[in-house]
Amino acid sequence: MPPAARADSPLYAQIAETLVQQVARGALRPGDRVPSLRQLSQQQHVSVSTALQAYMWLENRGYLEARPQSGFYVRTPFAGLIPEPQFEATPSKPAALGNNAVLTGILEASADPANVPFGAGCISPELFPNRKLNLILRDIVRQRPLHSANYDFPTGVERLRHQIARRALAAGCRVSPRDVVITSGAQDAINLSLRAVTRPGDVVAVESPTYFGILESAASLKIKVLEISTHPQGGMDLDELEQAIQKHSVKACVVMTNCHNPLGYVLPDRHKQALVELTARRNVAVIEDDLYGDLAFDDQRPWTAKSFDRKGLVLLCSSCSKALSPGYRIGWVCAGRFQAEVERLKFITSMAAPSLQQWVVAEFLSSGGYDRHLKRLRAKLAGQVESLRQAVSQCFPQGTRISRPAGGHMLWIELPPKIDAMKLWRAARSEHISILPGPIFSAAGRYKNHIRLNAGIAPSEARYRALATLGRLCADRA
Amino acid sequence: MPPAARADSPLYAQIAETLVQQVARGALRPGDRVPSLRQLSQQQHVSVSTALQAYMWLENRGYLEARPQSGFYVRTPFAGLIPEPQFEATPSKPAALGNNAVLTGILEASADPANVPFGAGCISPELFPNRKLNLILRDIVRQRPLHSANYDFPTGVERLRHQIARRALAAGCRVSPRDVVITSGAQDAINLSLRAVTRPGDVVAVESPTYFGILESAASLKIKVLEISTHPQGGMDLDELEQAIQKHSVKACVVMTNCHNPLGYVLPDRHKQALVELTARRNVAVIEDDLYGDLAFDDQRPWTAKSFDRKGLVLLCSSCSKALSPGYRIGWVCAGRFQAEVERLKFITSMAAPSLQQWVVAEFLSSGGYDRHLKRLRAKLAGQVESLRQAVSQCFPQGTRISRPAGGHMLWIELPPKIDAMKLWRAARSEHISILPGPIFSAAGRYKNHIRLNAGIAPSEARYRALATLGRLCADRA
Repeated sequence: MPPAARADSPLYAQIAETLVQQVARGALRPGDRVPSLRQLSQQQHVSVSTALQAYMWLENRGYLEARPQSGFYVRTPFAGLIPEPQFEATPSKPAALGNNAVLTGILEASADPANVPFGAGCISPELFPNRKLNLILRDIVRQRPLHSANYDFPTGVERLRHQIARRALAAGCRVSPRDVVITSGAQDAINLSLRAVTRPGDVVAVESPTYFGILESAASLKIKVLEISTHPQGGMDLDELEQAIQKHSVKACVVMTNCHNPLGYVLPDRHKQALVELTARRNVAVIEDDLYGDLAFDDQRPWTAKSFDRKGLVLLCSSCSKALSPGYRIGWVCAGRFQAEVERLKFITSMAAPSLQQWVVAEFLSSGGYDRHLKRLRAKLAGQVESLRQAVSQCFPQGTRISRPAGGHMLWIELPPKIDAMKLWRAARSEHISILPGPIFSAAGRYKNHIRLNAGIAPSEARYRALATLGRLCADRA
Repeated sequence: MPPAARADSPLYAQIAETLVQQVARGALRPGDRVPSLRQLSQQQHVSVSTALQAYMWLENRGYLEARPQSGFYVRTPFAGLIPEPQFEATPSKPAALGNNAVLTGILEASADPANVPFGAGCISPELFPNRKLNLILRDIVRQRPLHSANYDFPTGVERLRHQIARRALAAGCRVSPRDVVITSGAQDAINLSLRAVTRPGDVVAVESPTYFGILESAASLKIKVLEISTHPQGGMDLDELEQAIQKHSVKACVVMTNCHNPLGYVLPDRHKQALVELTARRNVAVIEDDLYGDLAFDDQRPWTAKSFDRKGLVLLCSSCSKALSPGYRIGWVCAGRFQAEVERLKFITSMAAPSLQQWVVAEFLSSGGYDRHLKRLRAKLAGQVESLRQAVSQCFPQGTRISRPAGGHMLWIELPPKIDAMKLWRAARSEHISILPGPIFSAAGRYKNHIRLNAGIAPSEARYRALATLGRLCADRA
């Protein structure tokens, strides 16, 4: 059953959901051409651009496919629809999140190898190009025996910054190697960016739910966070954001535009552009976490908000932790007008990034095999995500809603309202299963009946059994 | 000419300086046994323990040597004494240092390979055990092809933490592997420690002069710093520190007890103990930067303030950047009672340290060659430091005073009062020579006629010519 259209969903999402219902009723069948944009616009009394947004939203989620010069068609297979988490608009107030003592226990449980891991955002090690990375590594050690005998001062190895700038250009970002600072993963990039654009006591707007690392980083810097209502497929509510900027003099906005963690959406370019135009009008910085950008299931690498940045207000953060190697700890930020400040902060927080891994990643990116690797990795992860979705839909009680990610490897699951995610987390832990409870993804205490499951690890008998146990624990509480 | 004894020097330093003058006058000759502790105590009307401190201070600086069961002897050679920088007690007020725009230019000049480098604290790459590290690295890549395919969550690789704890034990610290958090170099360790023990607006006490990275890190966290008068050989004035703690409710104290940067002293154990007892009484945290601890020229590895910590208030920070590899970016902190908070902060600032280098350093430390390597490295650096001291004393104008480091590879140089270090830095830069001007080592605007020169790079004809140029630039201004 598809999710019901709700009065507070964006207009295009409502239209899209109407179409989904037509397919569910059989009024439209797989392979059928859907009404033209002009027809849809007339039928629904909306502009052609809203009609296009609706189709792009459906395309993004795999319901439709666009055929050049022809129009949009219902994609096959189009069956077994699993309901998705619901949108609820609940504007909140700026919150100064305290030290999250709960989080420590949750992360410990996630890191404990005794547990079946659905918690931490890990990917099966064999999905990384370890052999090729190791070959490059050995070559570099041979060719540059003094690879680590010097500090690489803050900005990082030139060759890597060049490769990062080259790939960013392909995603529509006009950046040069001088605009890149190498960091210790995306978390360092986000943390440095927050420090560059805010002072203690400032307010930053975040999505709701959002990655707990962002909330914790802000809290540790004594920055208040303001959760903006976020549609599970359509991203941050821009009207609410605009009001919030006026009301709370928001200094910056932290967004995950591609393969959102935990929601899984890829924002349409139009939405990214609207976000950038809105924040630019108000001189608000945008910290864009593009960590999962290379893992969008669509073959076309999605653009970023940074692609639309004309004022240098977008700080694009990413890393190679999700596509190449989490243990390398190589990330970066293209910080626009905040570049000099980020470089300075990198120097005074950790001097520089390790040299060796920078050389290895630079060589991997320039050797040409990266796109082929990404294609395989994305296909693998898309399969794992779908397989976990199906398994959850089989094991979990009626009323469970599961996200349909457009990329990445996370599932966001809305459980029946009676189920308390924190209690479920504790019960799961005593069954040696790690999950992440919804409340850690909110500074406003939301998502009490939500959990995040990681699909980055390959399916197995043990994982399926653990899901069945989780399902039973849920059913006991529903 | 030895420095004159000054009324505001510690008692033992005055006594020691009297002895130095006796040698200078020929009243004592190299190889002579100096008066026994009891005799000295009677002659000078001081306690035996103050007499011992005086001898240890002289031993520490290479003037005396202790012979077991026999006493202290004047060391050879004991000639060509170069005057050392003077102590000036000048209590200051807490200062909220702004963003140091000057520093960025200075660091850029330091990193510019076109300059003869006396600025950045680099060590000649060939002094590191690169070949052995690379051999270990290749072995690990072969034995653990998935070395970097997982996150090593905050605390870091167990084997490395074990080795660090083992070596800390040898320096009198009772720490276990669970007390160690691996960081991205010592700068990360200090930054995390500052964040763990303070909030924005708090006051921390620092030495004067102190490493500019500490000042910058505090400034970026909106922490006020209070400079405590620091004796060029005897460390922070503890009476002044105690008064400051009472008056300004100091939250923490950042100290470099071994091979101080830039002063070069190694604090006697007694002084370390007194510091820890004082701060413990007042419940003030001590962030101890032991980055250079393994580079003390004395063969005995000096103890740390942490060795005397009974309340878990000392956070011991160090790294392998000075003895093994700056480019590995591996540091650590043993954070005592702040351990959990530092772990949490490590996670939310950069998740974890790179895995591969952790394995390599662990293997290097456990393989047993580390102490042999250190012995060679220390001898080499001691030679380079002495050679640079002699060269500076030859090239620089009369009235120049040069530190006599007990370890590390920095020289702190007091120029004749008329010379403005910032102007000298600019003049040196246009001659393609990088140095560090004194004022960046103070938040209170001190050290206007001081510079720091790095002796980590092997002497060469080009370096000597650059020193001659520096000397000429000084003479033009003296």
